[in-house]
Amino acid sequence: MNHKNFKNIDKVTYGRGSFAQLAQTVEPIRKENFKYFVYVVDNYFKDKPLSKQLQNKPEDLVFYIDVDPHEPTTEQIDTLRDGILSKKGLPSGVIGIGGGSILDIAKALSLMLTNEGSSTLYQGLNLIKNPGLYHLGVPTISGTGAEVSMTAVLTGPEKKLGLKCDWTVFNQVILDPDLISSVPTDWWFYTGMDTYIHCIESHNGIRNNAFSLAYGDQALNLSRKVYLDDGSGQTPENDDILMVASLMGGLSLTYSEVGVCHAVSYGLSKILGTRHCYANCIIFQHLEDIYPQGVGEFKRMIKKHKISLPQGLSKHWSDDTITKMATVSYNLPFMWNHAFGDNYKEIATMDYIKDLFRRL
Amino acid sequence: MNHKNFKNIDKVTYGRGSFAQLAQTVEPIRKENFKYFVYVVDNYFKDKPLSKQLQNKPEDLVFYIDVDPHEPTTEQIDTLRDGILSKKGLPSGVIGIGGGSILDIAKALSLMLTNEGSSTLYQGLNLIKNPGLYHLGVPTISGTGAEVSMTAVLTGPEKKLGLKCDWTVFNQVILDPDLISSVPTDWWFYTGMDTYIHCIESHNGIRNNAFSLAYGDQALNLSRKVYLDDGSGQTPENDDILMVASLMGGLSLTYSEVGVCHAVSYGLSKILGTRHCYANCIIFQHLEDIYPQGVGEFKRMIKKHKISLPQGLSKHWSDDTITKMATVSYNLPFMWNHAFGDNYKEIATMDYIKDLFRRL
Repeated sequence: MNHKNFKNIDKVTYGRGSFAQLAQTVEPIRKENFKYFVYVVDNYFKDKPLSKQLQNKPEDLVFYIDVDPHEPTTEQIDTLRDGILSKKGLPSGVIGIGGGSILDIAKALSLMLTNEGSSTLYQGLNLIKNPGLYHLGVPTISGTGAEVSMTAVLTGPEKKLGLKCDWTVFNQVILDPDLISSVPTDWWFYTGMDTYIHCIESHNGIRNNAFSLAYGDQALNLSRKVYLDDGSGQTPENDDILMVASLMGGLSLTYSEVGVCHAVSYGLSKILGTRHCYANCIIFQHLEDIYPQGVGEFKRMIKKHKISLPQGLSKHWSDDTITKMATVSYNLPFMWNHAFGDNYKEIATMDYIKDLFRRL
Repeated sequence: MNHKNFKNIDKVTYGRGSFAQLAQTVEPIRKENFKYFVYVVDNYFKDKPLSKQLQNKPEDLVFYIDVDPHEPTTEQIDTLRDGILSKKGLPSGVIGIGGGSILDIAKALSLMLTNEGSSTLYQGLNLIKNPGLYHLGVPTISGTGAEVSMTAVLTGPEKKLGLKCDWTVFNQVILDPDLISSVPTDWWFYTGMDTYIHCIESHNGIRNNAFSLAYGDQALNLSRKVYLDDGSGQTPENDDILMVASLMGGLSLTYSEVGVCHAVSYGLSKILGTRHCYANCIIFQHLEDIYPQGVGEFKRMIKKHKISLPQGLSKHWSDDTITKMATVSYNLPFMWNHAFGDNYKEIATMDYIKDLFRRL
């Protein structure tokens, strides 16, 4: 089909305090399969009050996962899946509580619990064979749009690429602004900037349409309220807004595409393991020739919230490392095509992309 | 639960020309039940080119329905349902092609094909017992938000009230801006103003939150592009935008509520049969004391597009008629509550509401 037919999140609850409705929400699903849920929770919350509010039952499995050492990997998902199935059989569903990586783990796990073999087999579009299990996402940090996207991004031995299909999309999302109130300022900034940057990229390219522009431009307006205007900063009112901005930013990509920053970011993350949102910020500051207005505004936000980003990283990279990173980026033609138009191959050559990495 | 858990449209296709994908889209569903689809199409298209593009198969039932004499009624739905079941048994699904009334008929029919007895039994929230059939909506006029709402509004012998539940929401919507290009200017205006008015009402009240404001305020921005700014009018570019505005306006109501204009409008429609969007416009022009900015802008749009609205209607209404209309409006407490706050009963008395009708 020429026009994308996009799958929505089935159901969305939004509101301060709505996390307390989790147990009620999943109750009707609890009769499925072996009548228990798998919780995947960011390790950050292990000793925090949230760990007492999970509303889990004794039969549920709760995994606290440290997403700091690296982004989700295919091996990690396969190991988790095999352990769960051998221990308790097929669960009723998967509940993910955390940031973009945790949400991607929950999405990937729900698919891999019903699809045989390694998740490396399914990295790509519509490769998954069977519908996944019911899965519910609770973001505790906002910006990536992972709560609404049809992709569970995984880093495998060969590529960083998502399990992407209709079944990847969450059956339920609970958006409770209370949960993002304690995010450290630097990560509040980096993750929120993921929304800002992908909306700038979505807007500036050939793939957008009235749908992606309506969502993306409103997400940009909301981002400016949270990060730039008078009254910006980590306030309860802005947390309310940021959660909606992240959702709308994700929906903007439904009919558009990310661009140069994300292409470079994937290379950096794949080879050096740099976290996605942080990598975006490190790169975006150097793209003023490509996104002049967006980068200008971004720098004002950096200044306003006293964020410092590393400089001169590439001085320590060998030519071999740069070539490896550039190769990953080069192999994302849809991003370059969107950003530079139909003659993108003439612009985004390996030499051009290597030079982008040398700016960092 | 305190926070609404709202059901999204399962899948959405957006884009100029996307209607041509209808047959492909429903193909996987065609194996269900007695393997045929029911088409519900606005009678306006009976002799128009669209009637040759329905992509129906010989076994499908196509009903052209005239929605001009009145808005959808419970009796109409029951009769249609009984006729379909006795003729061909349970269909695979229902496809609605038309404006808000046709979309509401498709939604109601999909529910009533699997729920016994008269549809009057199910007017209200969550009264439907069984999931409805697969149903797909194709708007040919934009503004009511019927394509995204969880309500199929029906006028019964006793009340004008929707069949409202998660199953009411469409499984699939196809948004093709080509289809709204030939809407006559007056109805292009009235229906688009339904979005504008319900976003003004959604914004000005006690029920809104960051979610409803983000959606509603963007729908207002888009409405201004289509109806007010330089470049406004019925252009292809504005048709693209209007379809998204209608969707976002509908989503704004997910977490908010309509207000005074809609409460009065329901009374007018129920007693005199005035079409919903037209009734809204007739009323909204007289609510400058309640929504000063919105009504001011509305009047500028009226002037810009040379729309004339009837004046002095109430001169011809008996006190009995006005009492009947006011009674319908009075019995919509959630709208008055949203508009006037917790002491709404002191403001929205029967006398006050009758006076609103006398303004018309």
